[in-house]
Amino acid sequence: VSAVPREYGLLVERARETGYVGSAQALLAWDEETGMPPRGLEYRAGQLAFLAGWVHERFTAAEVGEWIARCEAQEWAADSVEAANVREWRRAYDRETKLPRRLVEETKAAQSHGQHAWAAARASSDFAAFAPHLETLLALRREAAECWGYAAEPYDALLETYEPGLTSASADMLLGTWQRELVPVLERARSRPRPAGIAADYPADQQRAFNATVARAMGFNLEAGRIDTAPHPFCSRIHPGDVRLTTRYDTGDFTSSLYGVLHEAGHGMYEQGLAVDAFGQPAGEVLSLAMHESQSRLWENHVGRSAAFWEHWYPEACRVMPALRAFSVDQVLAHVTRVEPGCIRVEADEVTYDLHVVLRFRLERAMVAGDLAVADIPAAWNEGMRALLGVEVPDDARGCLQDIHWSMGAFGYFPTYTLGNLNAAQLMAAARRDLPGLDASLATGTANGLLGWLRDRVHRWGGRLRAAEIMRRATGSDTGTEACRAHLLARYG
Amino acid sequence: VSAVPREYGLLVERARETGYVGSAQALLAWDEETGMPPRGLEYRAGQLAFLAGWVHERFTAAEVGEWIARCEAQEWAADSVEAANVREWRRAYDRETKLPRRLVEETKAAQSHGQHAWAAARASSDFAAFAPHLETLLALRREAAECWGYAAEPYDALLETYEPGLTSASADMLLGTWQRELVPVLERARSRPRPAGIAADYPADQQRAFNATVARAMGFNLEAGRIDTAPHPFCSRIHPGDVRLTTRYDTGDFTSSLYGVLHEAGHGMYEQGLAVDAFGQPAGEVLSLAMHESQSRLWENHVGRSAAFWEHWYPEACRVMPALRAFSVDQVLAHVTRVEPGCIRVEADEVTYDLHVVLRFRLERAMVAGDLAVADIPAAWNEGMRALLGVEVPDDARGCLQDIHWSMGAFGYFPTYTLGNLNAAQLMAAARRDLPGLDASLATGTANGLLGWLRDRVHRWGGRLRAAEIMRRATGSDTGTEACRAHLLARYG
Repeated sequence: VSAVPREYGLLVERARETGYVGSAQALLAWDEETGMPPRGLEYRAGQLAFLAGWVHERFTAAEVGEWIARCEAQEWAADSVEAANVREWRRAYDRETKLPRRLVEETKAAQSHGQHAWAAARASSDFAAFAPHLETLLALRREAAECWGYAAEPYDALLETYEPGLTSASADMLLGTWQRELVPVLERARSRPRPAGIAADYPADQQRAFNATVARAMGFNLEAGRIDTAPHPFCSRIHPGDVRLTTRYDTGDFTSSLYGVLHEAGHGMYEQGLAVDAFGQPAGEVLSLAMHESQSRLWENHVGRSAAFWEHWYPEACRVMPALRAFSVDQVLAHVTRVEPGCIRVEADEVTYDLHVVLRFRLERAMVAGDLAVADIPAAWNEGMRALLGVEVPDDARGCLQDIHWSMGAFGYFPTYTLGNLNAAQLMAAARRDLPGLDASLATGTANGLLGWLRDRVHRWGGRLRAAEIMRRATGSDTGTEACRAHLLARYG
Repeated sequence: VSAVPREYGLLVERARETGYVGSAQALLAWDEETGMPPRGLEYRAGQLAFLAGWVHERFTAAEVGEWIARCEAQEWAADSVEAANVREWRRAYDRETKLPRRLVEETKAAQSHGQHAWAAARASSDFAAFAPHLETLLALRREAAECWGYAAEPYDALLETYEPGLTSASADMLLGTWQRELVPVLERARSRPRPAGIAADYPADQQRAFNATVARAMGFNLEAGRIDTAPHPFCSRIHPGDVRLTTRYDTGDFTSSLYGVLHEAGHGMYEQGLAVDAFGQPAGEVLSLAMHESQSRLWENHVGRSAAFWEHWYPEACRVMPALRAFSVDQVLAHVTRVEPGCIRVEADEVTYDLHVVLRFRLERAMVAGDLAVADIPAAWNEGMRALLGVEVPDDARGCLQDIHWSMGAFGYFPTYTLGNLNAAQLMAAARRDLPGLDASLATGTANGLLGWLRDRVHRWGGRLRAAEIMRRATGSDTGTEACRAHLLARYG
């Protein structure tokens, strides 16, 4: 390996600049969801659009292409930060340079307006009020897909945004297989007795204290992060030393905020585990949403809904939230592992969740292909819910208006949720093989063995390896349905 | 007036861009004080330095100079937004182009490091630990002053940053006069009986609720702003529709947080009153810190410490904070108008406050001139406190390390506090002449007449008029000591 060329240093410097601005965008977006006064909204939308355009322009400048080409002529060590950066800069450069800045800014502005129109439309269950925004976003994303190009269908180009290498055909095959396998699991799970629940009064302050204790014990570093309140749980990475989770509080059921925190802390620990000195470079980022979701689902479901977890945490939960004393640890466990088909994806149990994803995947693929008109979405949605889950959708607010994704033009995002579930189960099975004492370690609540294993097998790689390679090295095989099926059968069969 | 030249539009567009980034900087800085996790600190400092350098570069580009020159060849309507923008862009351009980007970024980074070194040094009262940072900052600001140039002494160039048109000589004259006039006022005020105080337990939540009610009643719009907690009260303008105040809570004395809010809400209402469509342009900014401080001091002292204010608010304060019922309205009023020389500027009463400013002005002027070595500051400070206020300083934490300003290299800032006090009194006297029912309106708590008058005479001008012109039009004369002297004698004599 010869000396690092000057051009590599210039690319790192450019990435530092766009990283600074990207991090500012992340804070502006976090703030918009957590604390911005209403009158700041319109300006914020213009500001975010401008910054997105600026990052686009800096990264797609002609000199950047020349620097990348020069670096491609170089030999780099396998698995090195440098090799990954050059490879991923090339991929991103080729994609980004195909988009005119006008389209980048228009899309960003349409996302801001779409989100706020969606929030209002959902509040009044008025799909017609949101439809024109959806038309606009669909047209803009189709335009982007045409700019990028694709092998088989425009949806391929959109999938590539969230999951490099994933195609419509491969997603269709995997999701189809998984759907067929889920049917008998769901039948068995539904035959279990329905638990009585744990309804009581759990003040938000008590929930907040308990959530922070659990998140810290799992390994989420509160010196390098925060937990705030927002209408929807999300994780926002300002920097690996500044990772912010949000959750929301239902005073009638503390597990709603708790599992929001466990899920987002899974994302957050991944971000906290990235290499600080590669921040802003592809090697310092998570490039696969399916890998990201594998971490959130692993901590939320495999750790957080396990019997060992509740054996350990039940006494502390009762101490912090005295109302819980009216219920036994078994009742808590039954409550958090109940299976019940419903309308809302984010409230869905582990068994039915992916069926919600299947519906969205099919609808958005048809929308992008031009086979499903925006006006026909509500009917197609309701029919799909009937067919897949046997559920009647009472209104569009609880139907096709429930998710934020389409209001941001994020077509192609949903399949990564299911891939994340499959990856989570496969990683957990591998960790269990590698760490004989793992279940005992979950029971103590510290789960340190697990976090260390994930840091080593997943987190530290950042974008240095593609998702498929991370999965193969960590688990011995490609993403499949076997581990997840075994997990669901063991827990719900 | 002929058609607006194309170049004016280009300047507005450039200001829109730098405004977007400036607003992001403001949010990043606000966040650093209110919620950023500790591990985010180092990155944030580099990020803010980069953004400052970016704004500098965009504004000092050669084409900007050409556009300004083209616009100067145009006739603009008197008092117009356009005329002010062209005038102030010229002033800023001529100053900014004299600074190399390297100096801008170095100064920004030194400010971040200086602030954190200062906070640690103050906590342990260790001036020696802070001294090297102060040397660096002093050198950087002297270098900037040499770049800018000055008529008589380098300190002139620094004053110009905070108060366009103010010179060392004129500040010295005004502060000297005012100091001499304050001596007999202070003597009289000190002969008043010392009040017993209102010590009790005032929970922070109660204070928070009361402060928000008062701020809203004065006219601070909480749809376009927030009130948060931070170690020091400050006001941060992200946008005229997003203005954020902070305060801190002393559970033994609710007036500490209340007057923090009243002060910052004075700043905040000024920002909320600026023209939204000129945001980012000089015409949409407050260019004079003395004008800014006139608003904070007016609401804090002239409104908030008046008998009429407490007649109105005492019952509500007792309702929200039941512990206050142990004290009479007269005791509250006596407490908030007590006069007592002390070590700490931000806790100083109206009479002694400006003597703290006089000390800082003299010391920093000597520092910048090279007549006072950094190592000699503690002794000079303590001697000055003895001479001006008759106060013995127990340690540097309560002496020369108490203020944040020098840790940010903000030499030349302090005099604007006293100018602000003088302006506040002069504006209040003028408002009282123009609005016969003003004192009754304060007593109702709404004070709408006063805010409307300030909006019309001060706020709406933004940077369209220089401070001196705003004062002349609003009050009929230049900034002087007469109104403030009359106010203090009426209240404390």
